[in-house]
Amino acid sequence: MRRLLLTLRYDGTHYHGWQVQPGVVTVQQVLQDAIQSVTGVRAGVIGCSRTDSGVHANMFCCTFDTESTVPIERMPLALNQHLPPDVAVYRCEEVALDFHPRYLAQGKRYCYHIWNDPCRNPFWDRYALRRTGRLDEQLLNRAAAAFVGTHDFAAFCAAGADTAAEDTVRTVSKAEVKRDGKLVTFTVEADGFLYNMVRIMVGTLLDIAAGALPPDAIETALETGRREDAGFTAPALGLFLEKVYYEEGKTDAEKTSS
Amino acid sequence: MRRLLLTLRYDGTHYHGWQVQPGVVTVQQVLQDAIQSVTGVRAGVIGCSRTDSGVHANMFCCTFDTESTVPIERMPLALNQHLPPDVAVYRCEEVALDFHPRYLAQGKRYCYHIWNDPCRNPFWDRYALRRTGRLDEQLLNRAAAAFVGTHDFAAFCAAGADTAAEDTVRTVSKAEVKRDGKLVTFTVEADGFLYNMVRIMVGTLLDIAAGALPPDAIETALETGRREDAGFTAPALGLFLEKVYYEEGKTDAEKTSS
Repeated sequence: MRRLLLTLRYDGTHYHGWQVQPGVVTVQQVLQDAIQSVTGVRAGVIGCSRTDSGVHANMFCCTFDTESTVPIERMPLALNQHLPPDVAVYRCEEVALDFHPRYLAQGKRYCYHIWNDPCRNPFWDRYALRRTGRLDEQLLNRAAAAFVGTHDFAAFCAAGADTAAEDTVRTVSKAEVKRDGKLVTFTVEADGFLYNMVRIMVGTLLDIAAGALPPDAIETALETGRREDAGFTAPALGLFLEKVYYEEGKTDAEKTSS
Repeated sequence: MRRLLLTLRYDGTHYHGWQVQPGVVTVQQVLQDAIQSVTGVRAGVIGCSRTDSGVHANMFCCTFDTESTVPIERMPLALNQHLPPDVAVYRCEEVALDFHPRYLAQGKRYCYHIWNDPCRNPFWDRYALRRTGRLDEQLLNRAAAAFVGTHDFAAFCAAGADTAAEDTVRTVSKAEVKRDGKLVTFTVEADGFLYNMVRIMVGTLLDIAAGALPPDAIETALETGRREDAGFTAPALGLFLEKVYYEEGKTDAEKTSS
């Protein structure tokens, strides 16, 4: 028995997120189907994260156990032949049998893209939120700096989540906003993320930009821990899981993500 | 009567190029349909270029004449409501009645993208040629330098084109190859392009990379002017019209392309 770590990309537009759910199509399900087609055995796949419906990934890691004799260097192409066009594996490596892609993840990087123009862009419509009013990316970048550090992010967690039962303290190591032409991108790295955390961070930044929240709204929300002091939940389509970090030596996955 | 210059983007995957042809869908046709919906009048649209079937554009310019009283600043959004998701206008301005978007174009920039990995990429599959063997982008960049200058590009013109009747001398001001992770991009600027010229340039570079042509194949082909001394015609999907240049003061189009 070997444990294989797969690294993949997917366009989440047509998926109800990662995790298998009855009656809808998920990335985990199409991947499990592809693994069954290649190895002949139905294996459970464990993901690094439970991305929401509509969220995309440029680097998503997951593991499964197999007795298959397919050489690991041929596994990505073999799986891709059985995967739909919007999901593609680009790496496969053997890891220790106790390797867990979620528990061992030391950190993740997400990007959220905003197309800052009233006119549609055919190449970004599925991957960026469109906002008409000119965004001041320097103001947003200054505001985003308040996320950096170890804070209780309870206010940046979906109201439905059971925050009382969970530790909502996370350490954000990077939070910045950059502009490239009409594309404004929020990049955030942390040791972990709460449910909807990045999307609420983005909604809060956009509410600050629009004057719906004061410039120090992030500090206030971090202090009070109240969901209502943070901004709206930005839609899923602009969100990409960009990178998953593991302890050096456990995997080579992050070396080949671009 | 006013002459309006539109600047647009399109994903060319599902179009038989720019120019109206019977029995197939073209970008010119869907644009003329949208103009008719907005202005109530069928107008002929003149494009800056006749892009091939499957070629994309981040900046394409075209003009039409109209008596419409729709304010020009509202024209892009009005047209976009009647255009399919893969075509979008992002600028409209009034130009002189003798402005011709093809004759007055002083130059154009094209990019050709190559995804240099055996594994598919869901975000680039429609916009980049996939090549498995590792490409040496520095070697390609050195080879591409031979394109720069004023040359007879007869060898880099589709065999079917009537090169005898046409002046095949063009001036290339930029030709470079750069890598960003697994994405290798060829960028070329010239005062004009022959039929399939960029795609044959790319095919020649890839044939040189693969050893199917010698490193000095570009110089040879420029000298002989024989199509068979150049490389294959790379497929359309990786090709983007990126920029159209007009004489300063004639239009503001290029100021707002990103």
